[in-house]
Amino acid sequence: MKGRFFSFEGPEGAGKTTMIAMLESFLREKGFDVLATREPGGVRIAEEIRSIILNPAHTEMDGRTEALLYAAARRQHLLEKIIPAIKSGKIVLCDRFIDSSLAYQGFARELGMDEILQINQFAINGYFPTLTIYFDIDPKIGLERIQKNKQREMNRLDMENLSFHYKVREGYLKLAKRFSDRIITIDASKSVDEVFAMTVAAIMDRIGER
Amino acid sequence: MKGRFFSFEGPEGAGKTTMIAMLESFLREKGFDVLATREPGGVRIAEEIRSIILNPAHTEMDGRTEALLYAAARRQHLLEKIIPAIKSGKIVLCDRFIDSSLAYQGFARELGMDEILQINQFAINGYFPTLTIYFDIDPKIGLERIQKNKQREMNRLDMENLSFHYKVREGYLKLAKRFSDRIITIDASKSVDEVFAMTVAAIMDRIGER
Repeated sequence: MKGRFFSFEGPEGAGKTTMIAMLESFLREKGFDVLATREPGGVRIAEEIRSIILNPAHTEMDGRTEALLYAAARRQHLLEKIIPAIKSGKIVLCDRFIDSSLAYQGFARELGMDEILQINQFAINGYFPTLTIYFDIDPKIGLERIQKNKQREMNRLDMENLSFHYKVREGYLKLAKRFSDRIITIDASKSVDEVFAMTVAAIMDRIGER
Repeated sequence: MKGRFFSFEGPEGAGKTTMIAMLESFLREKGFDVLATREPGGVRIAEEIRSIILNPAHTEMDGRTEALLYAAARRQHLLEKIIPAIKSGKIVLCDRFIDSSLAYQGFARELGMDEILQINQFAINGYFPTLTIYFDIDPKIGLERIQKNKQREMNRLDMENLSFHYKVREGYLKLAKRFSDRIITIDASKSVDEVFAMTVAAIMDRIGER
């Protein structure tokens, strides 16, 4: 079975969603069968798990509990949506996967990258993406892009978030180095057309058709 | 901090519940502050996780998803109930803990003891019980005890369960060997009085008062 499972990583504002949508159209026009998905992906059990994680009343939620719940939701989404799609010959484009947990929870929230990797390896049981594209951008630029869309200024909370997002970026850069066979870093500060061209080149190279 | 966290393991019908109740009374009479608990222990987030696990409609639930959810519920119960009780000087008696996951999911359901141990080590983060008492009994005798209470004969389903419970027992015996510093095996086929005497001796030995 030819591996055709691609994940896309990076902070909000890096352009992930736009790139995935453009790539989906591009691949469909080329005649490929595509599944574009993101966790929890409409999978019932994964949705229920996410609603526990995201319930704002759950202020007592521990970081480790949360990490285990994310891994559980990931497992069920992988099993019900991604694996069947791969097996039926589809190209899977997944918006965030294991590396988000490693960068955000493992590194930025300091739960430990190796520990988060272990519980996620249990969850994915060998189903690493064929290729992961990390859209790298200075968090300040990413945040400004989001705010531009929302038509508002940066506030104190955004500035606090900023130092967290610099840690997230540091985490992603560590991952790109550690898993250099799987993760390709693309400079997301470039124009949409340039980023898309680099993304298509990387994906088509793995699919085996240029 | 003197470790006073005891867990109790074994199949249904081994007499765990009876023993914990007798031990709780005994320790209270001796003047100890006791917390007797079992997962999910009335902890809101853990209860919500359990209701996802136990929902009979969730036939699509994968074994690994389930194991991650059990570990998540365990984490939150440990953090909200067990750790504060230990810190306030209580003796904690917990009906089932990490070894249930290892014996049932890791060994009997063949998810792998080491893998289940890893995700649970992440969940408990060093809070292993001071001592674990495993009430060992031939599953056939345990099952007959339960049926005696329920006034019914063994049926085909019980017999199927039986082979599963023999695997669970094999798992527990492996654990008792592997963690021989922590796990004490008590022959639960003996009379209630004899089992209780052995249980009290083991516990008081660890508490440091005979």
